Amino acid sequence: MSIPTVMVGKKPLSRYILAYLFALQQNGSVEVKARGRAIPKAIGAVQVLREGLVRGLEVESVDIGTERLQGKDGREIRVSTISIRLSLPGKKAKGSKRSASPAQGPPS
Amino acid sequence: MSIPTVMVGKKPLSRYILAYLFALQQNGSVEVKARGRAIPKAIGAVQVLREGLVRGLEVESVDIGTERLQGKDGREIRVSTISIRLSLPGKKAKGSKRSASPAQGPPS
Repeated sequence: MSIPTVMVGKKPLSRYILAYLFALQQNGSVEVKARGRAIPKAIGAVQVLREGLVRGLEVESVDIGTERLQGKDGREIRVSTISIRLSLPGKKAKGSKRSASPAQGPPS
Repeated sequence: MSIPTVMVGKKPLSRYILAYLFALQQNGSVEVKARGRAIPKAIGAVQVLREGLVRGLEVESVDIGTERLQGKDGREIRVSTISIRLSLPGKKAKGSKRSASPAQGPPS
């Protein structure tokens, strides 16, 4: 099962909150990605869900990175990226990049 | 041993790269914090170190959050935050918030 991805851009915050919610309801997990100035918005939308809308929402992993893009004048631009993996409680995605611990027993 | 913290703000990127480096050399680990628009810069400086200056630099944990600040007009503003914990290879800080696995044996 592949995890749906939401790329956060220039739309209003509420759009992304809804997109995360929709993906979580469909699949139990979602991967949120953002670049550069959209990163604070991606985090903000995650926090709105965590702080009220979705009880027990799990932040499975947060990965940071860099992407190299071509600027308008042909020069290379480096842009910071973030990738946040969310899942509903008890619906941890398989193949998660960073598992908290090896499975040594059933979840209580 | 407490971990030194670097708060990323409005200074140029290079300042923060140097600040991370200095703390890493002194303590073996550093906690990088940023709010709102400074978040992409904090990530960018980490990536510059990871991609060349510090071989094997470990990103121990990345935590996201929200802070509530008082705006100029007295209204509450919510700001996204990030906290990135870095350590030199083999110098993982004790008391790390997110340990990869419980200590069940000596590090090889």
